Amino acid sequence: MIIKHIRDVVKEPIDAKGAKGVVKQVMLGPEDGTPNFTMRRFTVEPGGYTFYHTHNFEHEVYVLAGKGVARSDRGETEIIADTAVLVMPNDVHQFVNTGEESLIFLCIIPNPV
Amino acid sequence: MIIKHIRDVVKEPIDAKGAKGVVKQVMLGPEDGTPNFTMRRFTVEPGGYTFYHTHNFEHEVYVLAGKGVARSDRGETEIIADTAVLVMPNDVHQFVNTGEESLIFLCIIPNPV
Repeated sequence: MIIKHIRDVVKEPIDAKGAKGVVKQVMLGPEDGTPNFTMRRFTVEPGGYTFYHTHNFEHEVYVLAGKGVARSDRGETEIIADTAVLVMPNDVHQFVNTGEESLIFLCIIPNPV
Repeated sequence: MIIKHIRDVVKEPIDAKGAKGVVKQVMLGPEDGTPNFTMRRFTVEPGGYTFYHTHNFEHEVYVLAGKGVARSDRGETEIIADTAVLVMPNDVHQFVNTGEESLIFLCIIPNPV
């Protein structure tokens, strides 16, 4: 059993065109020995956003705090704390912080190969 | 993209010997079309606990609120909000609410077969 608190997890800023004000923390992943899937925690500052993109694996998201929208090619849906989002493989998607506090969410994916 | 809020997710009380005061909510699972893994949310009332058991698949847990302990055959470790727990396949484990508020956590597992 591996137990760790967010305060002990390295913050990895996402510094790339197409994303703004995003920090990633890998809570549980292959380095911990996860057999199948990886849990990441994202913090998006007010006015920030993740990539508007698509890939061949799913996201399972759970919003911990803040307010924002999930964008797809079919529009935008508001997300708040305790909202879950399933992004299917090849669904285009983006998470945008539209609030005045940090938007914080977990995002679980299959282990990177 | 499937988006749902906790208020719209059915509460399933766990009514079985070995668990006490536990409610399960399946946030995202096979009924939603999850390709690989299932996200559940558990609420354990003060004094309550989940099963002390083992199984051949992993748990990836993230504590949302409250205070408790994760028990294994090597002892107990305190868990609070923003603690992540990796329970490996065949690790014996139990989550116990030792606080005065509800202990709430996500628990992600491979899709049930």
